Amino acid sequence: MEEIKPFELTREFADSLKGAIERNDDDFILQSLEGVNPADITETLEEFTTDESKHIISLLDTQIAAEVISNLEEDTLRRFLRVFSPEGIASYIDYIDSDDAADILNELPLKVREEVISSLSSDEKAEHIVDLMRYDEDVAGGIMAKELIKANLNWTVEQTTEEIRNQAENVSKIFSVYVVDDKNKLLGRVSLKKMLLARKGTLIKDIYDEDLISIKTYDEEEEVISVMRKYDLEAIPVVNMQNNLMGRITIDDVIDVMTEQAEEERQLMAGISEDVEEDDSIWMQTRARIPWLVIGLIGAFFGAEVIGLFESDIAAIPIMAAFIPLITATAGNVAIQSSSIVVQSLANKSVFQDSTTKRLTKVIIVALLNGILLAMLAFAISYFRRGDINISLIIAIALSCVVLLASLSGTITPIILDKLGINPAAASGPFITTFNDILGLAVYFAVAYIFF
Amino acid sequence: MEEIKPFELTREFADSLKGAIERNDDDFILQSLEGVNPADITETLEEFTTDESKHIISLLDTQIAAEVISNLEEDTLRRFLRVFSPEGIASYIDYIDSDDAADILNELPLKVREEVISSLSSDEKAEHIVDLMRYDEDVAGGIMAKELIKANLNWTVEQTTEEIRNQAENVSKIFSVYVVDDKNKLLGRVSLKKMLLARKGTLIKDIYDEDLISIKTYDEEEEVISVMRKYDLEAIPVVNMQNNLMGRITIDDVIDVMTEQAEEERQLMAGISEDVEEDDSIWMQTRARIPWLVIGLIGAFFGAEVIGLFESDIAAIPIMAAFIPLITATAGNVAIQSSSIVVQSLANKSVFQDSTTKRLTKVIIVALLNGILLAMLAFAISYFRRGDINISLIIAIALSCVVLLASLSGTITPIILDKLGINPAAASGPFITTFNDILGLAVYFAVAYIFF
Repeated sequence: MEEIKPFELTREFADSLKGAIERNDDDFILQSLEGVNPADITETLEEFTTDESKHIISLLDTQIAAEVISNLEEDTLRRFLRVFSPEGIASYIDYIDSDDAADILNELPLKVREEVISSLSSDEKAEHIVDLMRYDEDVAGGIMAKELIKANLNWTVEQTTEEIRNQAENVSKIFSVYVVDDKNKLLGRVSLKKMLLARKGTLIKDIYDEDLISIKTYDEEEEVISVMRKYDLEAIPVVNMQNNLMGRITIDDVIDVMTEQAEEERQLMAGISEDVEEDDSIWMQTRARIPWLVIGLIGAFFGAEVIGLFESDIAAIPIMAAFIPLITATAGNVAIQSSSIVVQSLANKSVFQDSTTKRLTKVIIVALLNGILLAMLAFAISYFRRGDINISLIIAIALSCVVLLASLSGTITPIILDKLGINPAAASGPFITTFNDILGLAVYFAVAYIFF
Repeated sequence: MEEIKPFELTREFADSLKGAIERNDDDFILQSLEGVNPADITETLEEFTTDESKHIISLLDTQIAAEVISNLEEDTLRRFLRVFSPEGIASYIDYIDSDDAADILNELPLKVREEVISSLSSDEKAEHIVDLMRYDEDVAGGIMAKELIKANLNWTVEQTTEEIRNQAENVSKIFSVYVVDDKNKLLGRVSLKKMLLARKGTLIKDIYDEDLISIKTYDEEEEVISVMRKYDLEAIPVVNMQNNLMGRITIDDVIDVMTEQAEEERQLMAGISEDVEEDDSIWMQTRARIPWLVIGLIGAFFGAEVIGLFESDIAAIPIMAAFIPLITATAGNVAIQSSSIVVQSLANKSVFQDSTTKRLTKVIIVALLNGILLAMLAFAISYFRRGDINISLIIAIALSCVVLLASLSGTITPIILDKLGINPAAASGPFITTFNDILGLAVYFAVAYIFF
């Protein structure tokens, strides 16, 4: 017995395929891809040019090709769609689940979209897709698929099994059968396990489970994620206001959303303004990075103006300048810590949230504690190195004020962004450090000014 | 027909429960919790004291209580375990899946652990748990559960259905039946859908699917996540070196791991050294934040030493000091951008990775482009504000050097950390900004020194 394991994707494999395309050796290509999981073919094609990919896709069985296409990353997909005719796209869409199909159609210009929809072989599919395209991308309706198995309350297990048999080709993954009444209102669900174990002739209404968790079409994707995660669900039915069964969301879509969100947050925290990866072009990388660098630069010039106000003081006591990075670095670190704690608690929204006053009081106490600890340490080190009690006092006082102010700004900024409908993680990035650099410098020199 | 929706958790509900505990009104508590999903009970108990929670748990049906306990967060769980006797814990463990059970036992002191295991009512469960506890937490063996349904190749569909019936209580979620030979070697799987649709008397060997993706007990959790995500799996079988079926990992466990990883990365990037949340105590928050603030502070004192070397220059040209934050802020921003791009590409490991030389060349070109753009801008602004060509030249030259060096250090650090087995996201935190602050200052003053 040979070992069963995921197909091993290698650069050699990709290169041998590329060679075969150049030689026009279609037999070799087909042989190489025989039995390879469509997800692996997709991963390989991500490395190929659009023309190479089109060649390979045209050789594949339509159903496999459809799966390969539906797995592509958004930007590769967009390039792909340009080289296929509307009829070509439609032939693949016939095999793609309605949620992925709607996503693909959303990438197309309006005219092509209409052509693709009118070329679809199934009217039901066309209807499903048009229905799904009405929803925003980030609500449950925009993530759900129309493919699901439902059974009427009064059906027998055999009737339901027959329905599964009829739909088997359309619905690839069945976790449970949703139970509806004559008006398509969602009543509950029956797991396949229960159906398998049921005696012959059993009615659905005698075995179905009423304790069903569902979600509304207009619920936000964060809500979908948190409900599915909390209740460990692999699929969740989606209903409209009237509790009519509209679709279902499966866990793999939720995982995709989670992955996207994690990447988006990482980019926001790092001050990268586009979805950019290491293998993107030099031009894309530069374009993604320059905006926040420029904003940081301009912020720093404002900082320079603040320092410039005290030029004569610095000339008199040049050692003042040596502690500028101490102030700005601490301000930045504290602000990022504070904002990330708030971002975390916004991500895991609890129903048992403390009041704003209570939360801010806590932030202030923590900030005072941290500030005093750091101030004492900074006082000790600077006095030990410089032996100037005035300078050390200024540093200690400025540092505790800066920690307090940076904590407050780091806490409040993500809350405000969230209220404005902006991803609060944006507050944990260069914006907050730039802002706190200027704030910190102002405090430092103000304290120094008062003291001298 | 009433609307079916997730149970609404509110503070009022929690308060009414707390009141009932004080009044010792057990009937009210039981009535309130009737039909409430265990995951919701868990969420409520997270807000209660350990004694209050113990009271509620003791009232619940053991199976529901077990589920409530297994959903608790790690630190709440740890507090809980202290107030139960080993026999009490064992009675719950009887109802908890082996993977969660092993996690719970890992929280216990060795002696209590042995007592709990010897008090378990099922020898098989005890064996399973002991087996699972041998694996590291972050490999497939440490995530998998022993509960699964397997069928011998030569069984009929009816025999397999009977096995499902027998195991129904132990295995809550069945996605597919794993097919093994007489030596427990994994051969493939049969979906429940296929079993339901199969004709009577069909042999498993005639309907099973050989194209099965499995994972090894010793594969790392990142590998588990990436395989399950790539192939859209809701469950994956885990095998040992000899391809014997050892357990299975379900998607809900993978989602938990993903959530944990996202939180860990956020904390690393923000320089928070413990898993701390907004509702944790003031003491915990301070303890989690102070280490990186102190490290940043000490780093800044090194920076101060660098600046101190040029004290007399600053006294002569005090405006030099005004551009210190410009240098340090840009160095930090560039380094964080670079490291986060590397962290991202380490997270989505591609088999088609470019060579190190090619990757570094690209980093250098992007850095030069960014550096030159920023330098030109900084030259223009500083000349416009100050009218001193020398100062503007120093800033421009220093800035482009700093962007280049910060790009390189931001790229290399996470790669080194990853090689050392440390989470590379640690390189996107205060460490990299502190390091680059010092580096930036050294470059800035060195350039200034050469020019004057």
